[in-house]
Amino acid sequence: MSELTDSQVVELADRVEHFVRAEIVPYEHDPRLGAHGPAESLVREMRGKARDAGVLTPHILPGGTHLSQRQTAIVLQRSGLSPLGPTALNTMAPDEGNMYLLGKVATPEQKSRFLETLVAGDARSAFFMTEPADLEGAGSDPSMMKTTCRRDGNHWIIDGHKTFITGADGATVGIVMAKAEEGACLFLVDLPDPAVRIERVLDTIDSSMPGGHSLVRIDELRVPADQMLGDPGSGFALAQIRLSPARLSHCMRWLGACVRAHEIATDYACRRHAFGKALIDHEGVGFMLAENKIELKQAELMIDWCAGVLDGGNLGTVESSMTKVAVSEMLMRIADRCVQVMGGTGVSGDTIVERVFREVRAFRIYDGPTEVHKWSLAKKIKRDWSASLPS
Amino acid sequence: MSELTDSQVVELADRVEHFVRAEIVPYEHDPRLGAHGPAESLVREMRGKARDAGVLTPHILPGGTHLSQRQTAIVLQRSGLSPLGPTALNTMAPDEGNMYLLGKVATPEQKSRFLETLVAGDARSAFFMTEPADLEGAGSDPSMMKTTCRRDGNHWIIDGHKTFITGADGATVGIVMAKAEEGACLFLVDLPDPAVRIERVLDTIDSSMPGGHSLVRIDELRVPADQMLGDPGSGFALAQIRLSPARLSHCMRWLGACVRAHEIATDYACRRHAFGKALIDHEGVGFMLAENKIELKQAELMIDWCAGVLDGGNLGTVESSMTKVAVSEMLMRIADRCVQVMGGTGVSGDTIVERVFREVRAFRIYDGPTEVHKWSLAKKIKRDWSASLPS
Amino acid sequence: MSELTDSQVVELADRVEHFVRAEIVPYEHDPRLGAHGPAESLVREMRGKARDAGVLTPHILPGGTHLSQRQTAIVLQRSGLSPLGPTALNTMAPDEGNMYLLGKVATPEQKSRFLETLVAGDARSAFFMTEPADLEGAGSDPSMMKTTCRRDGNHWIIDGHKTFITGADGATVGIVMAKAEEGACLFLVDLPDPAVRIERVLDTIDSSMPGGHSLVRIDELRVPADQMLGDPGSGFALAQIRLSPARLSHCMRWLGACVRAHEIATDYACRRHAFGKALIDHEGVGFMLAENKIELKQAELMIDWCAGVLDGGNLGTVESSMTKVAVSEMLMRIADRCVQVMGGTGVSGDTIVERVFREVRAFRIYDGPTEVHKWSLAKKIKRDWSASLPS
Amino acid sequence: MSELTDSQVVELADRVEHFVRAEIVPYEHDPRLGAHGPAESLVREMRGKARDAGVLTPHILPGGTHLSQRQTAIVLQRSGLSPLGPTALNTMAPDEGNMYLLGKVATPEQKSRFLETLVAGDARSAFFMTEPADLEGAGSDPSMMKTTCRRDGNHWIIDGHKTFITGADGATVGIVMAKAEEGACLFLVDLPDPAVRIERVLDTIDSSMPGGHSLVRIDELRVPADQMLGDPGSGFALAQIRLSPARLSHCMRWLGACVRAHEIATDYACRRHAFGKALIDHEGVGFMLAENKIELKQAELMIDWCAGVLDGGNLGTVESSMTKVAVSEMLMRIADRCVQVMGGTGVSGDTIVERVFREVRAFRIYDGPTEVHKWSLAKKIKRDWSASLPS
Repeated sequence: MSELTDSQVVELADRVEHFVRAEIVPYEHDPRLGAHGPAESLVREMRGKARDAGVLTPHILPGGTHLSQRQTAIVLQRSGLSPLGPTALNTMAPDEGNMYLLGKVATPEQKSRFLETLVAGDARSAFFMTEPADLEGAGSDPSMMKTTCRRDGNHWIIDGHKTFITGADGATVGIVMAKAEEGACLFLVDLPDPAVRIERVLDTIDSSMPGGHSLVRIDELRVPADQMLGDPGSGFALAQIRLSPARLSHCMRWLGACVRAHEIATDYACRRHAFGKALIDHEGVGFMLAENKIELKQAELMIDWCAGVLDGGNLGTVESSMTKVAVSEMLMRIADRCVQVMGGTGVSGDTIVERVFREVRAFRIYDGPTEVHKWSLAKKIKRDWSASLPS
Repeated sequence: MSELTDSQVVELADRVEHFVRAEIVPYEHDPRLGAHGPAESLVREMRGKARDAGVLTPHILPGGTHLSQRQTAIVLQRSGLSPLGPTALNTMAPDEGNMYLLGKVATPEQKSRFLETLVAGDARSAFFMTEPADLEGAGSDPSMMKTTCRRDGNHWIIDGHKTFITGADGATVGIVMAKAEEGACLFLVDLPDPAVRIERVLDTIDSSMPGGHSLVRIDELRVPADQMLGDPGSGFALAQIRLSPARLSHCMRWLGACVRAHEIATDYACRRHAFGKALIDHEGVGFMLAENKIELKQAELMIDWCAGVLDGGNLGTVESSMTKVAVSEMLMRIADRCVQVMGGTGVSGDTIVERVFREVRAFRIYDGPTEVHKWSLAKKIKRDWSASLPS
Repeated sequence: MSELTDSQVVELADRVEHFVRAEIVPYEHDPRLGAHGPAESLVREMRGKARDAGVLTPHILPGGTHLSQRQTAIVLQRSGLSPLGPTALNTMAPDEGNMYLLGKVATPEQKSRFLETLVAGDARSAFFMTEPADLEGAGSDPSMMKTTCRRDGNHWIIDGHKTFITGADGATVGIVMAKAEEGACLFLVDLPDPAVRIERVLDTIDSSMPGGHSLVRIDELRVPADQMLGDPGSGFALAQIRLSPARLSHCMRWLGACVRAHEIATDYACRRHAFGKALIDHEGVGFMLAENKIELKQAELMIDWCAGVLDGGNLGTVESSMTKVAVSEMLMRIADRCVQVMGGTGVSGDTIVERVFREVRAFRIYDGPTEVHKWSLAKKIKRDWSASLPS
Repeated sequence: MSELTDSQVVELADRVEHFVRAEIVPYEHDPRLGAHGPAESLVREMRGKARDAGVLTPHILPGGTHLSQRQTAIVLQRSGLSPLGPTALNTMAPDEGNMYLLGKVATPEQKSRFLETLVAGDARSAFFMTEPADLEGAGSDPSMMKTTCRRDGNHWIIDGHKTFITGADGATVGIVMAKAEEGACLFLVDLPDPAVRIERVLDTIDSSMPGGHSLVRIDELRVPADQMLGDPGSGFALAQIRLSPARLSHCMRWLGACVRAHEIATDYACRRHAFGKALIDHEGVGFMLAENKIELKQAELMIDWCAGVLDGGNLGTVESSMTKVAVSEMLMRIADRCVQVMGGTGVSGDTIVERVFREVRAFRIYDGPTEVHKWSLAKKIKRDWSASLPS
């Protein structure tokens, strides 16, 4: 699938890492970083540098071929070495997953209108699926979706509420899921549109994604029929295509962030002294760093395994659930230890460790809380057990 | 020691709770809440209401007598039901501990000049002990203190750096620790003073304490000799008096905050449905709430036990270390579960759960990271073992 | 309720502790200790010594009054300082709970025939409630009970299977639960009886309870009607009376066992050296002992709290569930750390630490696995929430 | 290195699995299984069947070539599906590691005399390294070794104590480490020998290794000089060769045991009902099985990664430490969950789950407790950090 050899990918990843460390890390205390993510001017500035350095959208080759998932893992992890790296390099969520999906299922016309600008890093996109939790909303349970679409001549009209729509504020490309009689449908939408109103950008514990996460009201949004992805009723099936790679890409980027947090904590523990010796020479601290070293490796292996499953042509839903749970929980422990090792500095904004801790806390919720994945894994275990019984 | 009966304390605590829920909770989304804590105007406004309701500084009786520690625990926990409660009621850190210390060791003149205004809720104070971590700074290890004081006639002159000084920005009363030839000394200081420069208010993961936490430069600060607390060289001994009650009061307040977070998460889990039933009817969620219920009780018991030790006239250094570790780690788990139960809402600022999570994360560092306490407990275990050997 | 003052109880507990350490600890490597618990000859021998020392059945005063639960906690914990202590002192399960139940609900004739011999330490008893797990058996879910009883003139006839019946092998007094049309019934039964066949003594991970745990077949067992406890249909209600105190007494005894394991591990860590210093001076070890010290205190506080609830005349079902979960899980961590601190010695039978680890592992299952208690606590949380809503 | 293709290895592993399930599992309740491992008659009987089935010593090809470590992992895991499997197939510790070492460093004469009989499964061996913990013994710290050897003409004379010598009781081949002036030396020794006295077979929590673990006294043991492995002083270097593969093989075998325990627990949870539905349909149970599924995969990946490092010709000391810690701690959690899922049955000997739990508990100590590995990993992290600084 990929047109790059593994050694070419390593070389690319090295360039990505060098760029992030040299060019993006200095932005980590830029005043344009707000609670709802980096301002658009900062996004443009960083992307300009990435474009010049030849590392923008590094996981999609000229011509549109994607790296394999195992190759993507290497590159995206490096882009994540700064919380700003994915935004700067256009490897961030939800764009990475949106570009993947469009690359797989969009028509040539759709690609030309919506995908090219994304790959070029000239636009941002959002994926409108999750719905609010007003007692009965969808949340992590897509069967409860209430947003509707109905045919009206050569258009579809969409109505509903969506929430936690990452990057909606500032996006020019939207992918919206809604329910028709035929089942779920996915639409490509030009934004901004007065029918898609951002009611509120949520204040969330994380703060690295441009545009933040929004609560959105869709009121009689008219979409030309040729902007539907696939066929009416195919929405869930198409979303499944996006699901595992997008989920896995979260793991890749945040693994990179935790690698960096661990570097910072290690450096701190080696330089700083207390009670007569370097912090790292206290087993209480050294053991935490040892645990990080082990779990960082485990996270890397789990991602690589799941990526291999996807590269084998599988949907990988079960495997990406397993990986998401394992990796997000490990990264939380890793980030937490980094904070703890650094004491007061760890809970301050003086380094990115505190920010990474907050990002990773959100990750345990985003893309399905740990508990939802365990729930579906338990069902899978039961099905497999039944299937193993002699008939 | 206390002049209130236990039933009077319960009545007082009920009034505190009612006030916090009715009058302070509505401020929780006030725009004057910033990253560095509530603005002074908001502090004044809330305190005015507390004064009117007769619940300002509720743990110090008219005449200056403090409630016993066990009684204080009940009252301070209730004040903590909102993250803003302790500020509103003047039960917050570091003022609570500072008032306690001055009540114990200040001269009548010192009390009249510095303590009365604090008890009246008309001023805020700061305790200048911790020093920066520039390779060799004090951090959690007070023996590494570098701030000095030297006698100059009827004054002392203080020089040094301090960091993580809670509430320094906006405080009018300072208690400053510095090292003389005779050992550590504590000084009462009028603030602001040009010799005490707030170099920076740190951006920290927590955001409920007025004035935030500051990095401070002290340059040739002149303090009249009669503003020394106790005698030259008695600084550490005096700080010990403050240590355990102040540490325990953190536990009290944040327990209250977690009780509230648990209420919010329970309400959410009972109202919201997913996959065909109320969240709480999913064992994955119900078990988390059950674990909260158990650990909230354990935290309460541990605080009550340690308070009883202090009420018995003991310094309680070991007991308050044990309690701080146990309670802060339990509250972290509790707050984390509340976030997780609430999914996307849990990581948003829509409720205080996200804020409580951040506050409690900092608590595991503040007042000595868990690891420092375990380190000193291990030393204690070894000493006790040696003492138990037949001689 | 109790006729002893608190200081008398402390004196009694001290005598119990002294006796256990001086007289029972030496039996800990006695060859008569088998996989199914101490042999009857060893039980008799140890009890003879306890009787002589005046510490047999120490929680029941002459005349039959029980200590309060808070007092019982102190005495039973000390009896547990050796895994053999409870057997030697007649404070063990299931006898302790059985004596408690009979003291509360037996008729004078029943007491004279069945209780007196138990209190005198001359007999052992068993409580026949749990049923086998053959797909649909009762296990932790008493509603699934299948053992039946039917009236036959002046007798009842009982049929069914029971499992995990602690102490059945060698017991002379049985309390059997069976279902009649009127509901569950409890019967006092003389043992051995050919109609009560011990099919197998289970090999279990624990090995301190005399008689072990048995799988039992009851076939047409005839019991005179006056050996029913209470009335037909009152069986569950009566079992509830036994439930919380019996559950709590497990916590008391095993806390004692873990106190001792911690002593042994501490002694080991202070004496033994590795990598240039005493083990305890390695933070990796010292921190584990510090964690033990904290959790031992938490277990003690939780037991004391629950005991106080029971002493207040409450059934304490919720509180004893909370306590059982908290204490058993903490004791598991404590025992596990003791093993780990002691390395190879910790997994060997050279000290009782390995045995305590195995006992405590079983404790997390016995008397309801942790998960069953969390399940019922979640239900309670939901009920309380509903009750708190304005009507 | 290996002469088998990967698909041949899969075929071999399938045969191993089939043999273990069909032929060895039925022995799991054989009365010849004692507390100190299977009796020799049982070992012989099982090995006879393995020989007939062509699966004895499956990881060493005729001619003496070993499978690669990644291939070995697949085969050894399958052999571990029963706790008796490794003994039956001759893939057990310490023989597997001993055969590996002799294959690498023994002279042709030494191989002919000592290795061939081991590979043929006709003898058992022991590795005499660990020393007793009498205050200053070696334990996990080999620098404290006290057993000495001195040259006496054409012989060496060895004196000392060893402990936790797995399989010593019944072994006919010993590899003994002792200290000479030149440094540590390794000797091949014929056993039994009156100068090597088994003072005691320890009672340990695990019980699957034939011969158990012994405390051994070596008194003036004379060994011909040509039975030294390598040169005088090379003992530690040679032991390093054995170290990582032997450590990793523990992970392989016990992973197999936990795979089986998880199967048993899954089957139990799917068949048995409580509170109205199958256990697995309770999230409290289903989540535990989901966590097992995730951690079993993680263990497999970590082993495969470390095996790959070793196959690359590296000593892999750091990598095998990381893997040992990660895998043993995960397997402990997995085994613990299996016990918990199965309730009373889980703590009984009715299935092998209880036995696997005990074996895995010991594994966290054997081959270096978790803490020793973390200690050395922290040192490695510090060294790497220093090396990364600009010079």
